Amino acid sequence: MTLLTPLMRGSALTAIFSDDRRVQGMLDFEAALAQAQAECGVIPQSAAAPIARTCRAAFIDMAALGEAACAAGNLAIPLIKQLTARVKETDAEAARYVHWGATSQDAIDTGLVLQLRDALDVTQQLLSGLIEAVAGQAARHKGTVMPGRTWMQQALPVTWGLKLAGTLDALLRWQERLRQLRPRVLVLQLGGASGTLASLKEAALPVAGRLAQNLALGLPDTPWHSQRDRLLEVGTWYAGLGGTLAKFANDFALLMQTEVGEVGEPPTPGRGGSSAMPHKRNPIGCAVVLTAMQRTPGLMATLYACQVQQHERALGGWQAEWEVLPEIAMLVGNALAQTTQLALNMQVFTDKMRANLAITHGLLMAESVTLALAEFTGKQEAHHLMEALCRQAIERGCPLGSLLMHDARVTAHLSEAQIVRLLDPAEATGSAAQFVERVLSHYKEQQ
Amino acid sequence: MTLLTPLMRGSALTAIFSDDRRVQGMLDFEAALAQAQAECGVIPQSAAAPIARTCRAAFIDMAALGEAACAAGNLAIPLIKQLTARVKETDAEAARYVHWGATSQDAIDTGLVLQLRDALDVTQQLLSGLIEAVAGQAARHKGTVMPGRTWMQQALPVTWGLKLAGTLDALLRWQERLRQLRPRVLVLQLGGASGTLASLKEAALPVAGRLAQNLALGLPDTPWHSQRDRLLEVGTWYAGLGGTLAKFANDFALLMQTEVGEVGEPPTPGRGGSSAMPHKRNPIGCAVVLTAMQRTPGLMATLYACQVQQHERALGGWQAEWEVLPEIAMLVGNALAQTTQLALNMQVFTDKMRANLAITHGLLMAESVTLALAEFTGKQEAHHLMEALCRQAIERGCPLGSLLMHDARVTAHLSEAQIVRLLDPAEATGSAAQFVERVLSHYKEQQ
Amino acid sequence: MTLLTPLMRGSALTAIFSDDRRVQGMLDFEAALAQAQAECGVIPQSAAAPIARTCRAAFIDMAALGEAACAAGNLAIPLIKQLTARVKETDAEAARYVHWGATSQDAIDTGLVLQLRDALDVTQQLLSGLIEAVAGQAARHKGTVMPGRTWMQQALPVTWGLKLAGTLDALLRWQERLRQLRPRVLVLQLGGASGTLASLKEAALPVAGRLAQNLALGLPDTPWHSQRDRLLEVGTWYAGLGGTLAKFANDFALLMQTEVGEVGEPPTPGRGGSSAMPHKRNPIGCAVVLTAMQRTPGLMATLYACQVQQHERALGGWQAEWEVLPEIAMLVGNALAQTTQLALNMQVFTDKMRANLAITHGLLMAESVTLALAEFTGKQEAHHLMEALCRQAIERGCPLGSLLMHDARVTAHLSEAQIVRLLDPAEATGSAAQFVERVLSHYKEQQ
Amino acid sequence: MTLLTPLMRGSALTAIFSDDRRVQGMLDFEAALAQAQAECGVIPQSAAAPIARTCRAAFIDMAALGEAACAAGNLAIPLIKQLTARVKETDAEAARYVHWGATSQDAIDTGLVLQLRDALDVTQQLLSGLIEAVAGQAARHKGTVMPGRTWMQQALPVTWGLKLAGTLDALLRWQERLRQLRPRVLVLQLGGASGTLASLKEAALPVAGRLAQNLALGLPDTPWHSQRDRLLEVGTWYAGLGGTLAKFANDFALLMQTEVGEVGEPPTPGRGGSSAMPHKRNPIGCAVVLTAMQRTPGLMATLYACQVQQHERALGGWQAEWEVLPEIAMLVGNALAQTTQLALNMQVFTDKMRANLAITHGLLMAESVTLALAEFTGKQEAHHLMEALCRQAIERGCPLGSLLMHDARVTAHLSEAQIVRLLDPAEATGSAAQFVERVLSHYKEQQ
Repeated sequence: MTLLTPLMRGSALTAIFSDDRRVQGMLDFEAALAQAQAECGVIPQSAAAPIARTCRAAFIDMAALGEAACAAGNLAIPLIKQLTARVKETDAEAARYVHWGATSQDAIDTGLVLQLRDALDVTQQLLSGLIEAVAGQAARHKGTVMPGRTWMQQALPVTWGLKLAGTLDALLRWQERLRQLRPRVLVLQLGGASGTLASLKEAALPVAGRLAQNLALGLPDTPWHSQRDRLLEVGTWYAGLGGTLAKFANDFALLMQTEVGEVGEPPTPGRGGSSAMPHKRNPIGCAVVLTAMQRTPGLMATLYACQVQQHERALGGWQAEWEVLPEIAMLVGNALAQTTQLALNMQVFTDKMRANLAITHGLLMAESVTLALAEFTGKQEAHHLMEALCRQAIERGCPLGSLLMHDARVTAHLSEAQIVRLLDPAEATGSAAQFVERVLSHYKEQQ
Repeated sequence: MTLLTPLMRGSALTAIFSDDRRVQGMLDFEAALAQAQAECGVIPQSAAAPIARTCRAAFIDMAALGEAACAAGNLAIPLIKQLTARVKETDAEAARYVHWGATSQDAIDTGLVLQLRDALDVTQQLLSGLIEAVAGQAARHKGTVMPGRTWMQQALPVTWGLKLAGTLDALLRWQERLRQLRPRVLVLQLGGASGTLASLKEAALPVAGRLAQNLALGLPDTPWHSQRDRLLEVGTWYAGLGGTLAKFANDFALLMQTEVGEVGEPPTPGRGGSSAMPHKRNPIGCAVVLTAMQRTPGLMATLYACQVQQHERALGGWQAEWEVLPEIAMLVGNALAQTTQLALNMQVFTDKMRANLAITHGLLMAESVTLALAEFTGKQEAHHLMEALCRQAIERGCPLGSLLMHDARVTAHLSEAQIVRLLDPAEATGSAAQFVERVLSHYKEQQ
Repeated sequence: MTLLTPLMRGSALTAIFSDDRRVQGMLDFEAALAQAQAECGVIPQSAAAPIARTCRAAFIDMAALGEAACAAGNLAIPLIKQLTARVKETDAEAARYVHWGATSQDAIDTGLVLQLRDALDVTQQLLSGLIEAVAGQAARHKGTVMPGRTWMQQALPVTWGLKLAGTLDALLRWQERLRQLRPRVLVLQLGGASGTLASLKEAALPVAGRLAQNLALGLPDTPWHSQRDRLLEVGTWYAGLGGTLAKFANDFALLMQTEVGEVGEPPTPGRGGSSAMPHKRNPIGCAVVLTAMQRTPGLMATLYACQVQQHERALGGWQAEWEVLPEIAMLVGNALAQTTQLALNMQVFTDKMRANLAITHGLLMAESVTLALAEFTGKQEAHHLMEALCRQAIERGCPLGSLLMHDARVTAHLSEAQIVRLLDPAEATGSAAQFVERVLSHYKEQQ
Repeated sequence: MTLLTPLMRGSALTAIFSDDRRVQGMLDFEAALAQAQAECGVIPQSAAAPIARTCRAAFIDMAALGEAACAAGNLAIPLIKQLTARVKETDAEAARYVHWGATSQDAIDTGLVLQLRDALDVTQQLLSGLIEAVAGQAARHKGTVMPGRTWMQQALPVTWGLKLAGTLDALLRWQERLRQLRPRVLVLQLGGASGTLASLKEAALPVAGRLAQNLALGLPDTPWHSQRDRLLEVGTWYAGLGGTLAKFANDFALLMQTEVGEVGEPPTPGRGGSSAMPHKRNPIGCAVVLTAMQRTPGLMATLYACQVQQHERALGGWQAEWEVLPEIAMLVGNALAQTTQLALNMQVFTDKMRANLAITHGLLMAESVTLALAEFTGKQEAHHLMEALCRQAIERGCPLGSLLMHDARVTAHLSEAQIVRLLDPAEATGSAAQFVERVLSHYKEQQ
């Protein structure tokens, strides 16, 4: 289904999870294994180089490989066959030492870890870019007042800066989590047929240590053929980050609604047009992020279910990871790229924000008045009074301000000037600016 | 990720959900739309043929199409642009009438329905083949006694035929469900920009009727751009069928375990071998089916979540369907093909089944004795006595039969011959044969 | 977590899935089993009545039962112990025949089927009520014009009646599916220890037939202890219906947004108020429906995964159904009740709908003009021209109508009167009314 | 559904997530809020104590509270009403200051965080206990040889100690993750109506700081009403840990199969018995763990989907968390308790392990021979030769040893003594012991 890949999986991560890179990951393992074994005296020195230089995805007949996997049940078995045959063409002796003492899953898992390392590197860069963009916008819009909305109804005013700072705060947490998980998950897989490395005898641990070093991967205490929490952790990170992105995209699309109109996707000629409605600007970027989010929860359910892998090598759980984990990373990678575009070049319509603050004729600011009254009457009485006045304002379609100024229960406690001030949204953003500053300050510390 | 497609999605359904067929589905809609509109006098008679003969996926620049989808947000907009341009090359007048009055989703959804019709046809054939194979084996093994197993412990004897009949019974229900859902889901999508067909004016309903007829699809009462229960239903059917297949594959793999050894996958040279253990025969077919089942529950979670589509056209929910629904169908289609191979050519080791029936030294048959005793002593007393005797048999490692024959509480009610008979598994398959016959009889009625 | 039950699971279905009814379901099985066995001469005539009259949940020590399940692994084993002990108090002979020849899962599954039958009955009534309410509103609002919205942007006009008719159309399909699934799923479970009914010998099939008849359940061809597609089907139906309800609730909440304001939940004193904002009316009913929908996809993922049940009785898959299937039914049952309230008493603000149609200054109606122009210029040229004019209208903030009337490329083809008419939303609802009538007509046929 | 709670949610965590504790969590927030506000001079000093001493769940009418939530949409609104009324009974002045300046979600979220802190404390203790138990067994069984199994087929030998060490290694990672997440998730929620703390004016940040301190919670940079990654992280941790437990339980149940018989659940009178088969010992503990695992993936799918919360307060996503997150914790908590029992008191049948190693007549050890031969012939030739000999051994049912000793292609390179040694499983556990020691050494460092 490559036709939808540019739209759905259009980031730099997709190349990392291509067929070629999957095969190259396994071949990198085989090359480094031969090198480590030669260094440890397990295989002849002379065998390592011929193997290593043959470990190139370009040499592999990919169509034959895919077909052969049907009988083998995985890609490593036929890949090693092809590799061995090709090494044999130039060095029959070296060919005897291809994949020495390893098992298919060693190659497949380590290959995947190498792909994941590249993916996490690229993702970290994308994430840093997004964080920078959001931080910039949060600073810029620290004082941009707009309606807050709870239960999808206008609530007290907030600032666009505060909304962005909430996202920034979450993104900084995702960055912290990424730092913590990297050393835990970027480790070698080497266990041989049953995870004991029996076939490497006394050389087993030295080879494993050298191999991990050569690949710049961590060395785990035990092989992890059927302990998959590391891969799960990568998935949970991507899917969780995707959730933060989708929360932002969903709010953005809600704010772009025709009747709300407070923000816009960056205007790009030809983008977001509708075939039937020339005037429309569809939130394409948001849609892509939200589409990813429709899929990651289900993909994660699979990854969780995949934790139950039987004994030393699984039947179903392992195999399902092969496509599911890359899919999660690619979908979220694309969501990350799309969100960054949005964050960098978003349109912000501050006039519309102010206009929207006014459409409830002051009802939005009722709580300020309630609280001011509550200091005199207690909270519940103030609440009941304001509830009644608000209902009147709605029913009669008249501004809350006038009702307040003509109600003795109110004017007994509040002057007209006080009422006017209590009803001004810009006066009512509370600690929003300080919240923004706190997040920005933490952001700057981490750069 | 095409490298894993032969292994994971190797059935005839995969071609149906290829990029080419996806594009051709939309083009078939466009061709038939032009034809119907010409027949109804909405567009000139002369416009239909030039459009129709240009509606071939082979004419489309697929790479450009995929890239253009990034700005358009879907494939239909750039596809129609390419189509219009190509029609224009030979007939500028006809080009004006491409996609007349329709919306992108009309083409995308109807195209998908056309693909699904082909998929359901192929699936029905695969399913019929599987049903025939399972029915044959159920008949063959009506009397093949083996241990039943509950909570993954040996329980009373069953027959291999009964296990197969349980699967057959479920498969017949899936066949019935398929018959019921076809007319409900194989319907035209045609609504125009907002689902009112406003742009077709009075010709709207005639065109829709004609178009449905030309495509041999049902005509729904309303456009269903954001009512997706039909597509959901297709997904639930495939995923549910996949569950039945995976239940069978899982039991099969459990029965293939080295220590159990009651069945085997069809022996095929080179298939299921292990790179490190030359003697092994891995249950590759079962693994493929189980891998599909690891994925379908999560994919279905997505499809359910996709039901909540906003207003007249969705932001995320619709777009997520594009890859998820075909993925479910392809995974289960492959599981179906694999299970059929298994069902046709399975190895059944009846000697091992009988040997396994004997390994509990008669404990397996304890319930027969319990029930026989219960007629004299009541159920609970019999149960307690037998529990004690079974514990003795286990602790001393001696056959239950001897203990029974030497216990006065037993011999007071049962003779030695009766005890021998009660302990014979072949005497204890109850109504298994009749259950098999009932299913086979229903199967035959439906052929 | 009963505290949240009124809010989350407040419908009549919740009582059906109470602990008491769960126990009573199993006891109803036991009573009917004894009766059927007495009728078939398997147990003494005199045993049936003492057993039957003791089969009352009120007699059961529920706390002890729950605790005893920890050792037994299910509720049936300790329940039958309690039942047997109580029967023994009055009739020691009858006590010997409690649960004769059956297995725990026979009682648990049949008990569940009895609960499900009650649940489906109640659900059918709720669904009929909702269908009637929605049909009434669809008829009432057949001509109520409002903006259509695609990608969460205003698109061409639709009618509120058409939106309701789309929901009604889907609800009628759910009703049809319910009719089809009832006979398939409401069947007896009776198989004994391994599903062969061995312990009932020749009386097995007669007892099963009689028991099914006494319980007014269908008689399946085979026991289905580990073939769970029937229960899955019930889950898919509820969760799917829940999707249709949530689509409606989500649209409703979107339409209730402060800036949109086209509909409202039925105003009820004290309902939907906010503790801090006295003026707010939160869409509580919609929230409840949407909360259910957040949960059902994940619960369905579990139910799909539960299809893979080992051999004759499962380890995990079966046990997970016990709480998950009732949870789905209760959540959707409540969503159904809430949606019915919404459908019966919704507020519809037709003035606001018309006002919203006007806020794009005619851009909403651009397609009408595009299509009118296209008849002269071809679709693409018309599309390009209109795209430019719409952009101008947006940039200058002036009505599209004026631009059109002053553009020679337009006035060459269209008169001022034609332009005015093309820009009138009420003229542009296409076949909406006919779509509504088609659904209503099918609705009436089915009453 | 409390009847199944002892079986499904039987650990100490369940009490923490009871209705009472949920209410008490919110009340603890209210008490500490009043205290902090009094300390900061926001409310009168005299108001704090009357509020605080009334904040006891025992004072709340729970049934009325549950019912009132239907109109309010959450528990906090009616809870605060009840609280205020009760405070008023003794101190009308203090009653005015209940919940001052806070919003419902502040109370609900902070209350939940307080529950989660208790839950994580208890969980940490349970986890430490399990780790200690598994470490003890891994040390004990460092040399206990048994068949390794891949693809559910016997593979090379492993040790029971190595299998346990793999689990221990994963459990240590979960412990590390828990340490990392605690400070991130155990933070105060305080934002007021729209997350700006507007109603607390200048006192907002001082009150928040003091409140966090009083509750011993972290102080977040921003309110997180609709940024839910912290709660998600708790869910991912529990569900992930549950996966590790279920992998262990599944292996355990596979090893308990009648034909395998290598381990057993701790024998407890009356536990795991079958109503129909007195001899059976069902793996009840494993079933409970596996049942939890059937459910957590779907529950996690929901929690991921819940990340998309609208604007400042969500409609559906927030509300769904209320039951789903506690459910995950309770299910996994119980799985943890059950696994600990299993780990402490498991039966290990070393004789059966050795007997199972022998049932392939040496085929299990084929790789040792292959590798030994490969040193002379190269890997592929050795592989082909051994494949042929293994096939012969299977077909003729004769020991691989004899075939090897009579095949000139083998005896050309290997002596009889060498062959005997190559076929001894105990000689072939490779680095298993060292892997166990590495994990145990890390375990000890962390105590």
